[in-house]
Amino acid sequence: MHCRPMYKALIRSFITLTCFQSVRLMAATNAWSKVVLFGDSITQRSFDDGSWGASLASQLQRKCDIVCRGFSGYNTRWSKIILPQIIDKQMASDVSVVTIFFGANDAALLEKDPQQHVPLEEYEQNLQSLVDYLNSVGITNDKIIFIAPPPLDELEWEKACILKGSVLNRKNSVTGEYSRACCKVADRNKIDCIGLWTDMQQDKDWKRFFCDGLHFSEDGARFLDDKLSPLVLEKTSHLPFLYPLWDEVDAKNPESTLDNYKAAKEEL
Amino acid sequence: MHCRPMYKALIRSFITLTCFQSVRLMAATNAWSKVVLFGDSITQRSFDDGSWGASLASQLQRKCDIVCRGFSGYNTRWSKIILPQIIDKQMASDVSVVTIFFGANDAALLEKDPQQHVPLEEYEQNLQSLVDYLNSVGITNDKIIFIAPPPLDELEWEKACILKGSVLNRKNSVTGEYSRACCKVADRNKIDCIGLWTDMQQDKDWKRFFCDGLHFSEDGARFLDDKLSPLVLEKTSHLPFLYPLWDEVDAKNPESTLDNYKAAKEEL
Repeated sequence: MHCRPMYKALIRSFITLTCFQSVRLMAATNAWSKVVLFGDSITQRSFDDGSWGASLASQLQRKCDIVCRGFSGYNTRWSKIILPQIIDKQMASDVSVVTIFFGANDAALLEKDPQQHVPLEEYEQNLQSLVDYLNSVGITNDKIIFIAPPPLDELEWEKACILKGSVLNRKNSVTGEYSRACCKVADRNKIDCIGLWTDMQQDKDWKRFFCDGLHFSEDGARFLDDKLSPLVLEKTSHLPFLYPLWDEVDAKNPESTLDNYKAAKEEL
Repeated sequence: MHCRPMYKALIRSFITLTCFQSVRLMAATNAWSKVVLFGDSITQRSFDDGSWGASLASQLQRKCDIVCRGFSGYNTRWSKIILPQIIDKQMASDVSVVTIFFGANDAALLEKDPQQHVPLEEYEQNLQSLVDYLNSVGITNDKIIFIAPPPLDELEWEKACILKGSVLNRKNSVTGEYSRACCKVADRNKIDCIGLWTDMQQDKDWKRFFCDGLHFSEDGARFLDDKLSPLVLEKTSHLPFLYPLWDEVDAKNPESTLDNYKAAKEEL
C-alpha cells in the first residue's frame, strides 16, 4: 500500500457531477448504490489480502458499496433458490452492477462429487434463470457481468482433495465446457462475460494464478481484477462522488453545504 | 494472499448457531448486519491494499457487511451534521458496530488550516454529540468503538504539504491533545477506545506506520487492524454464519434447506 493521490478520481467525479446535474444524489446509507458480487468461494474470499473485491471497494470509495455475497461450495442450482433473498425488489433499485461467478462447483464430476455437481445443460438453464430473475426486479443486462469459471490445476487440486480425505473431483477439460456454456448464455443475453478459463491459460505460467489449484493466489485475484475493474468502473461512471470535497465545505456555515446535500436527496 | 482454511471460522459459527438457536437469522441483503466505519481519509482508504477495512470484511465474510463511510478531510463539526444521513433510524437496527475515527483534521492548526481546524473543547463536544445521536437511534455504547487520531510524523507531512503548495499545518504534540480528549470522552461513556497516538509511539520505529507522515502505510494499517479486529470480532461473535455450509445443503431437495433458511427469516 502506498499513498495514492486521489485527485484523478476526484476530478473525474467533479466532471461527472457537473455534466449530470440531474443525477440522483444518494445520501442515506440504504440508498448508496451497490455493486453486488454473487458467487461461490472465489467470491466469498474476494476481500482477502490484495483480492479483487477489496480492490473494487478501494477504487469506488465515496461512490458505492461493494456487497460481497459469496457462498463457498455453492452451485447455480442453489444460487437460483437464494438470489431473491440476496437481491429483493427494494434493493434492486440501488444496484448498479451484479457479478455472477458460478461454475467451479457445478463442474464437479458427478461420480466423484454428486453433492455439488450440476449437469451442463441445467447449469446453462440456471444461469438463464438468474438473469431472468434479475430482469424481473428491474436489473437490466447491461448491469450484469458474468465471470466464467477459471481453469483448474488438477495436480495441485488433487493434493488439496487428498488432504481432505477425498479424491480429485474436478477436471480442467470439464470446467472448460462449463466456461464455454457460461459465455454462451452471456452472448445470447448480450451480457459482458470474462472468460477466465480461456484468458488465464493464454499465460504459459497460468498455474501461478492459484493457491491450491482452484482458488486464486494474489496473482490470480489481480488477473481477474485487471479484467473486471474497467467493466465495473464503466458501468458506475455515472455515479456521483458522494458528499462535497473537504475544501468545498463552507467552513463558516457547514450546514449550508452539507444540508444542501441532504436537501438534494430529499427532493428526489 | 494464501489459501486460508476456513474451518476454524466455520466451526466457531456452527457453535454460535447451536448455542443461540433463537438468534435472528437475516437473509435479505438489507437485513445483513453492518459494521459501519465512520471517519476521515484514514477510513476512506481502509480498503486499499492490505488495509484494515478489507481485513475486517475478509474476517467477517458470511456474517455481516463492512460499510465504509470515510470522508477525506472531514472533521467532527462536519461529521456531526452528516451522521444522521449516514445511519438513519431504520438502518441503525442492523448495525452491530460503529467505529468513530476523527481528529486528525480537527487537530489542524487554526493559523495554518482554519478550514479544517476545530477547537479542542468543541472536538470533545462533537464526539459526545455523535455518541448521543447513535444512542438516540438505539445504538448502545457497547456497539461503538472510538479510534483516536494517530501520531504525526511532522517531517514527512511537511514534505507532503510543500508538494501541495502549503506549509506544515499540524503538529504531533497538538494531535496528542486531541487523542487524549478522544480517549476521555470514550472513558466517560464506557466506550472502547484505541489510543493510536500513544500505542504507536511505543514502537521506536513508529514513523514506518505512515506513507506521508499522516496516512497509514501497510504497516500502520496492520497496526490498527491488530487492535481493532479483536474488538469487532468480539462485538459480532453472536452473529450467525449466514446460509448453510455447502455440505449441509440437502442436494436432493435443496429447497428444503435453503427455503427453511428463508422461512426462519420470515418468522422473525
